[in-house]
Amino acid sequence: MSDIKDQIETMARQARAAALKLSQLSTGEKNAILQAMAAGLRGASASILEANVRDLEAGEAKGLTKAMLDRLRLDEARIDAIAGGIEQVAALPDPVGDLMESWERPNGIKLEQVRVPIGTIGIIYESRPNVTSDAAVLCFKAGNATILRGGSEAIHSNRAIAEALVRGGEEAGLPEHAIQLIPFTDRSSVTALCQMDEWLDVIIPRGGRGLIETVVSQARMPVIKHYDGICHTYVDAAADEQMAVKIAVDAKTQKPGVCNAMETLLVHEGVVASFLPKVAEAMQAKGVELRGCERTCQVIDAVPATEEDWKTEYLDLILSIKVVGSLDEAVEHINRYGSHHSECIVTEDAAAAARFLPAVDSACVFHNVSTRFADGEEFGFGAEIGISTEKLHARGPMGLRELTSYQYRVRGAGQTKA
Amino acid sequence: MSDIKDQIETMARQARAAALKLSQLSTGEKNAILQAMAAGLRGASASILEANVRDLEAGEAKGLTKAMLDRLRLDEARIDAIAGGIEQVAALPDPVGDLMESWERPNGIKLEQVRVPIGTIGIIYESRPNVTSDAAVLCFKAGNATILRGGSEAIHSNRAIAEALVRGGEEAGLPEHAIQLIPFTDRSSVTALCQMDEWLDVIIPRGGRGLIETVVSQARMPVIKHYDGICHTYVDAAADEQMAVKIAVDAKTQKPGVCNAMETLLVHEGVVASFLPKVAEAMQAKGVELRGCERTCQVIDAVPATEEDWKTEYLDLILSIKVVGSLDEAVEHINRYGSHHSECIVTEDAAAAARFLPAVDSACVFHNVSTRFADGEEFGFGAEIGISTEKLHARGPMGLRELTSYQYRVRGAGQTKA
Repeated sequence: MSDIKDQIETMARQARAAALKLSQLSTGEKNAILQAMAAGLRGASASILEANVRDLEAGEAKGLTKAMLDRLRLDEARIDAIAGGIEQVAALPDPVGDLMESWERPNGIKLEQVRVPIGTIGIIYESRPNVTSDAAVLCFKAGNATILRGGSEAIHSNRAIAEALVRGGEEAGLPEHAIQLIPFTDRSSVTALCQMDEWLDVIIPRGGRGLIETVVSQARMPVIKHYDGICHTYVDAAADEQMAVKIAVDAKTQKPGVCNAMETLLVHEGVVASFLPKVAEAMQAKGVELRGCERTCQVIDAVPATEEDWKTEYLDLILSIKVVGSLDEAVEHINRYGSHHSECIVTEDAAAAARFLPAVDSACVFHNVSTRFADGEEFGFGAEIGISTEKLHARGPMGLRELTSYQYRVRGAGQTKA
Repeated sequence: MSDIKDQIETMARQARAAALKLSQLSTGEKNAILQAMAAGLRGASASILEANVRDLEAGEAKGLTKAMLDRLRLDEARIDAIAGGIEQVAALPDPVGDLMESWERPNGIKLEQVRVPIGTIGIIYESRPNVTSDAAVLCFKAGNATILRGGSEAIHSNRAIAEALVRGGEEAGLPEHAIQLIPFTDRSSVTALCQMDEWLDVIIPRGGRGLIETVVSQARMPVIKHYDGICHTYVDAAADEQMAVKIAVDAKTQKPGVCNAMETLLVHEGVVASFLPKVAEAMQAKGVELRGCERTCQVIDAVPATEEDWKTEYLDLILSIKVVGSLDEAVEHINRYGSHHSECIVTEDAAAAARFLPAVDSACVFHNVSTRFADGEEFGFGAEIGISTEKLHARGPMGLRELTSYQYRVRGAGQTKA
């Protein structure tokens, strides 16, 4: 352990030194480095695929499921897509240096609030090797140094990708240690990383609840986490029922395994008789299993829902349905059982929407739009490092801007307090 | 312990429920409540002073220093000043509801990023009883519920102040449990509070390094902390030397016990011969003890500085002085030994300032202005909950705006992904 800790501390100190250099790079310099990284990745595709085969073989021997092996698998097209992603990031506007505000005080001092990089970012993730590039590259564009700690299943692929990025980037001036991958996957490396608060400004864990719990309980520095997405759609008394069916089916079935998919449908009692049968039919046509509250089960054919259902992120073709007596009851249910991620109200009543949106304590609230739009790309951020369920620093979809901090720059002519 | 934990969990759940109500109050409602709190505090001054006497007597019996007793002591004028502070907060603009940005996507969905309260805030502080009111009131204005955990020395005063605020406020509609003071001061109450991440969105510790260390190592939720202020003034080769003396003396002596006071003076070797004797004379006239690097001690009378001096926040009339060969060396020293709080460059060379400000990794950087201006009041925020040395969420002086989060509100006409 102490050997691992020493190695990680060395990496963390190196990351801090690199961050100071990164913060001084111009947008043009960063973009040239990004282009070189994309070229480096494409040029190294043979060795990346070779490394990937080693991971896949080890995964098969370990008995990974077909789905897990698929997440792990790279091919020429996937590597090309990862490189294309880097080029897209190069094309995005650089938030660093943006003037957020400027003002002057009566004593003549002039203040500016300017975006600057956060500094050093630890990314802890699980099986997908593309995260090695996606996360490092976004953090880099915002001027940050990264320490990457990927899952053991993808270690050979991750090493090959990181090496290709760094080799490619260094030819174009990437500072040394700007992107570092922890070369081993002992669990103690996570613990050690969590103690580097002197050198690491933030940790972003990407993965399952177990990983996030470990990081949250151990980290001394801020953690930007993303827990479950238990998203709701509330069909109001004044809903356009046809629109409500369309939105609900989309939110549940268009991609059920993701965090912004709907898990619970709340239906105003005023539309139960007409709406519930319609939505049930549409959901069943898509193969969705329905679990309903008592009143729901009186109207449609559904499995009786238990208390546990309201707290469950199915990530699957299962939907819980609850009848509510009012908009307030819907809001109360969402704030109590939801995960503060994304919710939708379907209504033609603008006043109802105006009440619903601010009352729901969630990162993203939608009026007549599927919750599946809770996403950095859909929001127009161009790229996304994750969707935060934090309320501090960044909430909801996180793009480049959310990977920056700010600095106050104050200019005067010798002002003193005395 | 488990009894204390249960009680604190109950308080934390109540705070969350109160926060949902607080987030729906209008600015007018909040301001009326603030006025009522100020009146409540003034009306309860007799019982607050009585409680304060109990704290002072206990403090004397415990052997608190004169300075500590003075920090603890209340009188009519101090209570009036606290109440006046509440009225000032009522007069400040309300950040909640501010439209930060709005835009539309090609598919027609309309997005708004709107400021909302953070939710629930834990404040852990030490001896000054005025913090009970100052912190609770600022958090309240930004729509947040607070749980206050003050130091044992001020427990009677804190209870009396919190009771007066709540009684006054409730008459004007303050939601129940919007402001809660933990009525006991066992150490385990800090530990328990740090585990309430399901109910508490953030903890702000205000106090010494020991308290902050405890909170940082135990808290599962974000912590906005304020460590030391090891602030620097760098006198450049192109400095106006008279201005440099004035700024340096102000930064060191105007109020040496605060975090934005200067601790280390960095002097470019080009001005050593002329500037050092002048600044030494001015500092010595103010009773400042000088500790210098080798080159400093060759020119002026100073105690030889050790490595430890560069890392020390004296909070006293002591100044360390170092001669540097270049602006880059000054930047390097600051980034290595500083606490990323506030630094100043004195120079007439605009290009040097333009290089220095972004290169220094600190919350506030000043050109020809004393570091003593690193302060929410001086920045024009109207009030300050603290000065963050974090880089996430809030950096530098924190006013009302830094006590808010945001929510994305998205409106459409039935858009779906499928």
